[in-house]
Amino acid sequence: MDKKIDILNQEGKEFFMLEAIKEAKKAEAMLEVPIGAVVVLDGKIIGRGHNLRESTLQSTAHAEMFAIKEACQTLENWRLARAQVFVTLEPCPMCSGAMMLSRVAEVYYGAADPKGGTAGTLMNLLQDERFNHVAYVESGILEEECGALLTNFFRKLRVEKQKKKNLEKSSLKD
Amino acid sequence: MDKKIDILNQEGKEFFMLEAIKEAKKAEAMLEVPIGAVVVLDGKIIGRGHNLRESTLQSTAHAEMFAIKEACQTLENWRLARAQVFVTLEPCPMCSGAMMLSRVAEVYYGAADPKGGTAGTLMNLLQDERFNHVAYVESGILEEECGALLTNFFRKLRVEKQKKKNLEKSSLKD
Repeated sequence: MDKKIDILNQEGKEFFMLEAIKEAKKAEAMLEVPIGAVVVLDGKIIGRGHNLRESTLQSTAHAEMFAIKEACQTLENWRLARAQVFVTLEPCPMCSGAMMLSRVAEVYYGAADPKGGTAGTLMNLLQDERFNHVAYVESGILEEECGALLTNFFRKLRVEKQKKKNLEKSSLKD
Repeated sequence: MDKKIDILNQEGKEFFMLEAIKEAKKAEAMLEVPIGAVVVLDGKIIGRGHNLRESTLQSTAHAEMFAIKEACQTLENWRLARAQVFVTLEPCPMCSGAMMLSRVAEVYYGAADPKGGTAGTLMNLLQDERFNHVAYVESGILEEECGALLTNFFRKLRVEKQKKKNLEKSSLKD
């Protein structure tokens, strides 16, 4: 099997992670949890996506799923062999599974997900040899930026919730 | 949290698995690997789906994904709490993940998948307490029928391949 894998240098990895961050910011602008992803083949982005769970009311509306779908459409093939996925947050079981089913070659992520990450944190689905596909996985690409997107988003959410509570309290006093 | 779970009797479980089998047969009629699923809430089917990987050229086009998407649409909610999934084949990591993200209460499957099943065979994602959701899982509902659908499909495929080869050989001799 032709399994040529492009070895990206750090600059290349950060270039594509910045594209995933752009996607995450599109989610943030829609008050969605800021997570973004791109799929890359031969140095070109063939799929992009950002989290849209609240807007679509779909549990499966994760960034990676949209990016993978677009990539399959672009290639007119459900196999994304040799493709690279860049995602701001460590993938969950669903998205790890979608990457395995698509036979992507490499997965790069930014921040680890201690609550649900399955590309190294809770387990490593992408490198479990019992499945019929194993991918290369690398974590920590622009980790700080990717993580800060999320912590800032949730901090802002908490502040707004508190403000709302305070307003309600003060209006009750009136 | 209101987590009332309907305890189905065997007849009820088989009734809904037969609906999943109907979905699998729709896939078969399109020369897709025959796998089908339904999502049930309060005794009603709120989502149906069958495998469409080859027709859609999408790696993520699994039966369960369509059934879950339709169920989210029906309820206008990404949370499918109290819902039950019936699927002819043990779910893969992607579909197990989608069920966890949807917070479905119960998962019933027919045949086990020794190559990629993650609801008891290779692992049990749906009952791993490190994730933020754990579902009830029951296997073996109409197991024989669900398994036979798949073995017959692949047998037919092999026979047709052999016929084609024989035809090619005999035409070479002419």
